[in-house]
Amino acid sequence: AGWDTYLPLSHTHTHAQEQTMQFLLEVVEILTNYIRKTFDRSTKVLDFHHPHQLLEGMEGFNLELSDQPESLEQILVDCRDTLKYGVRTGHPRFFNQLSTGLDIVGLAGEWLTSTANTNMFTYEIAPVFVLMEQLTLKKMREIIGWPDGEGDGIFSPGGAISNLYSVMIARYKFFPEVKTKGMAAAPRMVLFTSEHSHYSIKKTSAALGIGTENLILLNTDERGRVIPADLEAKVIEAKQKGYVPMFVNATAGTTVYGAFDPINEIADICEKYNMWLHVDGAWGGGLLMSRKHRHKLNGVERANSVTWNPHKMMGVPLQCSAILVRERGLLQGCNSMCAGYLFQPDKQYDVTYDTGDKAIQCGRHVDIFKFWLMWKAKVCIYLEPNKSLNYRRPFLLAFITNAVLIWSYQPQHTNVCFWYIPPSLRGLPDGEERRDRLHKVAPKIKALMMESGTTMVGYQPQGDKVNFFRMVISNPAATRSDIDFLIEEIERLGHDL
Amino acid sequence: AGWDTYLPLSHTHTHAQEQTMQFLLEVVEILTNYIRKTFDRSTKVLDFHHPHQLLEGMEGFNLELSDQPESLEQILVDCRDTLKYGVRTGHPRFFNQLSTGLDIVGLAGEWLTSTANTNMFTYEIAPVFVLMEQLTLKKMREIIGWPDGEGDGIFSPGGAISNLYSVMIARYKFFPEVKTKGMAAAPRMVLFTSEHSHYSIKKTSAALGIGTENLILLNTDERGRVIPADLEAKVIEAKQKGYVPMFVNATAGTTVYGAFDPINEIADICEKYNMWLHVDGAWGGGLLMSRKHRHKLNGVERANSVTWNPHKMMGVPLQCSAILVRERGLLQGCNSMCAGYLFQPDKQYDVTYDTGDKAIQCGRHVDIFKFWLMWKAKVCIYLEPNKSLNYRRPFLLAFITNAVLIWSYQPQHTNVCFWYIPPSLRGLPDGEERRDRLHKVAPKIKALMMESGTTMVGYQPQGDKVNFFRMVISNPAATRSDIDFLIEEIERLGHDL
Repeated sequence: AGWDTYLPLSHTHTHAQEQTMQFLLEVVEILTNYIRKTFDRSTKVLDFHHPHQLLEGMEGFNLELSDQPESLEQILVDCRDTLKYGVRTGHPRFFNQLSTGLDIVGLAGEWLTSTANTNMFTYEIAPVFVLMEQLTLKKMREIIGWPDGEGDGIFSPGGAISNLYSVMIARYKFFPEVKTKGMAAAPRMVLFTSEHSHYSIKKTSAALGIGTENLILLNTDERGRVIPADLEAKVIEAKQKGYVPMFVNATAGTTVYGAFDPINEIADICEKYNMWLHVDGAWGGGLLMSRKHRHKLNGVERANSVTWNPHKMMGVPLQCSAILVRERGLLQGCNSMCAGYLFQPDKQYDVTYDTGDKAIQCGRHVDIFKFWLMWKAKVCIYLEPNKSLNYRRPFLLAFITNAVLIWSYQPQHTNVCFWYIPPSLRGLPDGEERRDRLHKVAPKIKALMMESGTTMVGYQPQGDKVNFFRMVISNPAATRSDIDFLIEEIERLGHDL
Repeated sequence: AGWDTYLPLSHTHTHAQEQTMQFLLEVVEILTNYIRKTFDRSTKVLDFHHPHQLLEGMEGFNLELSDQPESLEQILVDCRDTLKYGVRTGHPRFFNQLSTGLDIVGLAGEWLTSTANTNMFTYEIAPVFVLMEQLTLKKMREIIGWPDGEGDGIFSPGGAISNLYSVMIARYKFFPEVKTKGMAAAPRMVLFTSEHSHYSIKKTSAALGIGTENLILLNTDERGRVIPADLEAKVIEAKQKGYVPMFVNATAGTTVYGAFDPINEIADICEKYNMWLHVDGAWGGGLLMSRKHRHKLNGVERANSVTWNPHKMMGVPLQCSAILVRERGLLQGCNSMCAGYLFQPDKQYDVTYDTGDKAIQCGRHVDIFKFWLMWKAKVCIYLEPNKSLNYRRPFLLAFITNAVLIWSYQPQHTNVCFWYIPPSLRGLPDGEERRDRLHKVAPKIKALMMESGTTMVGYQPQGDKVNFFRMVISNPAATRSDIDFLIEEIERLGHDL
């Protein structure tokens, strides 16, 4: 059996064709069983093994690539085992990341996308998907509040790349000659972002040749929001040094605290000093779909660009991230290179629909269809994107007796950050010893949790705060009882530490 | 029906759960029918419509997002119509791009990947996939010829991003302080690449702040290969101007001609002048799997980095692209930002398996599984990746009577570039009129071809050559008769032009 065995599915190989389709249907059987079990709470979230264990090989499951082809029967076993030793991110008790859940309409959309196996660069080979992307981006811009949904945008492989686009476009707007002449053609430019913002802004500063030292971190208030006065003071300071303040990132929903920076106040400062305003709504952008919560992004319509990841709050399968730009033409101007073999100007159709030259990618995965299909099925305009925010309060109340919340007030998003204080630490006075011991509690509970495989939640230190849990509710399958379960599990595992 | 209707699949909603699973199985039915028809030559490759036609809405198929949710029945119709108005890139008569074909094992892998719906950033939530990626990258490095498969690498969203990584890493190797201080900390650096190389090298020069003017294009010989003496002359010239020659891209399989730059001669020059050697094998890398053809990449083991897209020559579903790096640690050094909420150093497992911080992305789609599964099923080491190269010769012979090949010799890869000369032009002497008229022939035939929907092939001008066809054979389902069909179709559509 060589590389071509299971293909071609040609007329002349009816038997091979049927065998191949049968194989595919058997994989579907494995997948549907997996899905059913994922939503069954008696199934574990994961069956943890260390890297060396999986590398040594589990019974019947060998990750190594050998020189002998496997039978289709063994390939089916491999599929089953791959799922068995993985993590059920759709499980109602998986609270570990901002992207959780498993939406079946979205999943169906992704299966169709894989089957279509095409590429977003031209209308020529992706006519339907290209149009779906344009219509959906326009709808998203309308929801942001840009007049008539005008502007531009593109789906990109994740929020980090969407944020990278925002800085690239801003730089192109202010210093278009950087495209041809490089950074030497521009003065020393500085960017501003919250000390709590996503690390992709820092990655972008490094990648684009701006330098991480030219990314200035802004102080936050007790809720984790940027302090506008600190921004203005740092802008003035940068100008005094002769630098050019060019770009401000306001985060709508920070990764750890779920904080929303005050966009309107930041926009005032951006206008005053002629800076590009980007809103990183990768996590919080989904609240724009909510009548009740969209006020947290008030002022977003003043942004020059917005990152918005439907694969987070809106539960679209990975990946689905959009960069939206208010001014039309900048994306094209910044990135286009007019490759003759793809973007022929003499095609028979309107070639303005060949949107690929806007991208920093050439080939681009079709990320739009699953989102478009979910939108068609569910209509997300001004419906609550999910019930997560309503679940947060009982969680807080239940937990307050044995945990210490990071804040003494309501957090802004579904993130709830807290320490679990084991009985052995409850009598200790605040001080270095207590901090050192508390720092080890969350990792220890997390390790025990992964080994028992019952639930998953994230932890991290931040600033001067030692390791604490970050609970995120974004899976629509999670109910109050799942949250109760997490609390009990943390108590069970952490009680004797 | 609101956003949550078809999920959660919880215990308490057995009926909803069954309805949801039934929906998914109906989508599978649509997809398997589509697959069967894709390999049926009586099915058209596409059913072409102009953008305005699709936007106005076809019967029962409306691309617009409304405020009213659709029924699941309508969602199924939408799925059918999305496929109906798309392009069958797996059809044996689709010759339009470097990525063609529809491999069923790969497709099964992609369906499983979507179902697992996880993210490559940490071992914590993608243990199996992270290990598969490491093992596969190691195997690829062994095949490149780096001792013991040592080195580094990562799968990225496409060859353009893989190429971007190569320039970033090279810059980091020579001028690590650019990461923190920006391009101001480095001298004026210049890059070199073939005039026929992929446009992503140019996009990268713009994005990274180097500037497209600092990308120096190299002349090619009559087969489209870089002339090493031209490289050396331009390196010397750049040094005389005080610039720092830093990076050379050698293309293994150019996009249009399928040319292989002479890697060994280029490597000699890179060593002499202390430059980074990158091999862009996005298209031609697959030949490394072929005993017969891998000599075309002789010297690839001397490269500092290699781009290799299994989604092209090896038929893996989109997307699957790897950047491979000979020196370990550079990817990490260049990109890591040590985000505390993802890459906690105090996890219970060996955190060197948390590979996400090497990436410029944060969330990263699982691109490895489909490739790993295909490899397991088919074993690609030293098997011919497909039969395409054997098909090229009869194609050339059959065509030579009525077409003018771009070259008078064998091209190096499966690309065959040619003009079709309609009878009305055959008597015309070479000159401006003939060139002008010939320039319009390929677009016209292509337009007619798309309207009849029977086959697809690409065209473009290049350098001083007016529009010509680029025929690419990479679909393992294509047979000799499909190539004959293309020839007849071009004759049929172009005869009277």
